[in-house]
Amino acid sequence: MTDTVAADTAASADTTTFAGAPSERTRVRRVAENARYDAATVRAIVDDAYLCHIAFSDDKGSHCIPTACWRDGEHLYIHGSNGSRMLRRLVESDICVTITHLDGLVMARSAFNHSMNYRSVMIYGRFEKVTDEAHKRRTMESFMDRLVPGRQAEVRAGNDKEYAATTVLRIALAEAACKVRAGAPTDDAEDMAWPVWAGVLPFERSRLAPQTDPACALAVPDYVQRWSEGAQ
Amino acid sequence: MTDTVAADTAASADTTTFAGAPSERTRVRRVAENARYDAATVRAIVDDAYLCHIAFSDDKGSHCIPTACWRDGEHLYIHGSNGSRMLRRLVESDICVTITHLDGLVMARSAFNHSMNYRSVMIYGRFEKVTDEAHKRRTMESFMDRLVPGRQAEVRAGNDKEYAATTVLRIALAEAACKVRAGAPTDDAEDMAWPVWAGVLPFERSRLAPQTDPACALAVPDYVQRWSEGAQ
Ligand SMILES: Cc1cc2nc3c(=O)[nH]c(=O)nc-3n(C[C@H](O)[C@H](O)[C@H](O)COP(=O)(O)OP(=O)(O)OC[C@H]3O[C@@H](n4cnc5c(N)ncnc54)[C@H](O)[C@@H]3O)c2cc1C
Ligand SMILES: Cc1cc2nc3c(=O)[nH]c(=O)nc-3n(C[C@H](O)[C@H](O)[C@H](O)COP(=O)(O)OP(=O)(O)OC[C@H]3O[C@@H](n4cnc5c(N)ncnc54)[C@H](O)[C@@H]3O)c2cc1C
Ligand code: HEM
Ligand code: HEM
Repeated sequence: MTDTVAADTAASADTTTFAGAPSERTRVRRVAENARYDAATVRAIVDDAYLCHIAFSDDKGSHCIPTACWRDGEHLYIHGSNGSRMLRRLVESDICVTITHLDGLVMARSAFNHSMNYRSVMIYGRFEKVTDEAHKRRTMESFMDRLVPGRQAEVRAGNDKEYAATTVLRIALAEAACKVRAGAPTDDAEDMAWPVWAGVLPFERSRLAPQTDPACALAVPDYVQRWSEGAQ
Repeated sequence: MTDTVAADTAASADTTTFAGAPSERTRVRRVAENARYDAATVRAIVDDAYLCHIAFSDDKGSHCIPTACWRDGEHLYIHGSNGSRMLRRLVESDICVTITHLDGLVMARSAFNHSMNYRSVMIYGRFEKVTDEAHKRRTMESFMDRLVPGRQAEVRAGNDKEYAATTVLRIALAEAACKVRAGAPTDDAEDMAWPVWAGVLPFERSRLAPQTDPACALAVPDYVQRWSEGAQ
């Protein structure tokens, strides 16, 4: 079976290296000067994400579904219910996973040269099911660790019934392309003297103060306190 | 032709009302208590977005492409080059456009009940080309107005050559479903006494101070100054 990962193959699969060069499918054609194909850029964009969008199709057409994701080694992981239409479809054919970070609005002198600063990655391939139980639990714990370091040890861990109802899938970060735009606008030479302010209006994903569940009487622990204090 | 919009049909098309009830394709099955199908929710999620992800497929498989978007009346609009593979494909078959806002991480007592707070919309249908030149320019200006109110009047406006190279597409906000999660975690009764902090770790998209292009000697105008001062 090509759509499952056994424990013994997992370790070797984790050493997969990125292609580094575009495939027929990942070669960026439009605004190709913003293309990047290196593993470090792929990883950095994935590691800064909490969610991805996945394109797949079935008898109802194309679907674009948002879902939580995390990186573990050379793979991107997702999880959900055994009963999920999406998860069942994703191991049946090649799909495309995209992550996008919007960093700013780019204000040029001409309307035409307005743009956005961004970091995006598109990953092609097929998801495979994580069938080894230890691997499945370990990577779900690494998901929690990525979200809120320190919390895994305190929560009521997933039990056998919960894990039995859960599907974990992963896809290799192998056939991937990035597009990255950063910095000031690029105007045509003849527009440079146009009397309008030019520059970038930046965005940031920021963290607000933790909101304690009204039903929770416990104090905010250190690892939660740190949420909105450090860098995001 | 069903994939183009002429000036005369544009006005009447703008009065299209939302379905309000799910179609076979938009009925939410998983965690259906978070589903919403009303026009106000669709609009609010679209209006808070700068970008969407579009799922479509061609002979290379499924693609998930991030692109800037804006709402004008009862439609979602996108734009790009006449030469764009994506834009050429989008008028040829039904596709799916998704917008997702991540509002927070939901920390439950049990690992299994951890979740995210979010607002998402999935729109199905076919894009149509905006062929009327006045309609095309008016909606591109409304895009600029939505991004940075006040700027349109100052920039060097798009010229005939630039507009001739640009394709603008729109899709009706008609066959759409939303999923929205907000508020505290939902734990099972038997986990409520587990001694771990529970609550929400919120995110916000925030605006940082404008960055003037090093090649620009002009002062920051009021409408740019307001960027990082008011609410996002
Ligand atoms: C925040 C944001 C806003 C954008 N807004 C617009 C817009 O308004 N109009 C517009 O035309 N384009 C926009 N883009 C660019 C858009 O994502 C596509 O790159 C572009 O539309 C060309 O699509 P295509 O299918 O014709 O590309 P092609 O260049 O033909 O795509 C070929 C291959 O290149 C790779 N690739 C293409 N785009 C990306 C990407 N963004 N990230 C990683 N790999 C990629 C994929 O492997 C793809 O299959 C935006 C991108 C971002 C991140
Ligand atoms: C930020 C975020 C994180 C998420 N993380 C996960 C995760 O880790 N695991 C997981 O299983 N699910 C996650 N979801 C939910 C995910 O988007 C899907 O709703 C879910 O995976 C079920 O997919 P399905 O195709 O099986 O759904 P079905 O319920 O069978 O979908 C049927 C129809 O319902 C509508 N619909 C489904 N999902 C959405 C949506 N999100 N927004 C608007 N309309 C929708 C569409 O019209 C779709 O075709 C997340 C959603 C968000 C917004
Ligand atoms: C209103 C402000 C505008 C913004 C924020 C904006 C944003 C963008 C972005 C982010 C892209 C993608 C570029 C990339 O792939 O890196 C793009 C592409 C494009 N935009 Fe705009 N745009 C704006 C106005 C305009 C106007 C007014 C026109 C035409 C008059 C226009 C024509 C185009 C074209 C043709 C492309 C395709 C570039 C290519 O694929 O080669 N844009 N725009
Ligand atoms: C680590 C922290 C976790 C987070 C942030 C998280 C997040 C999410 C999110 C956002 C969803 C989508 C719910 C929706 O559609 O509204 C989801 C679904 C799901 N999660 Fe998790 N999860 C976590 C841990 C777990 C664990 C440990 C398990 C199993 C032991 C699990 C099993 C599931 C299942 C089965 C679903 C599908 C729900 C459905 O479609 O009915 N999750 N999760």
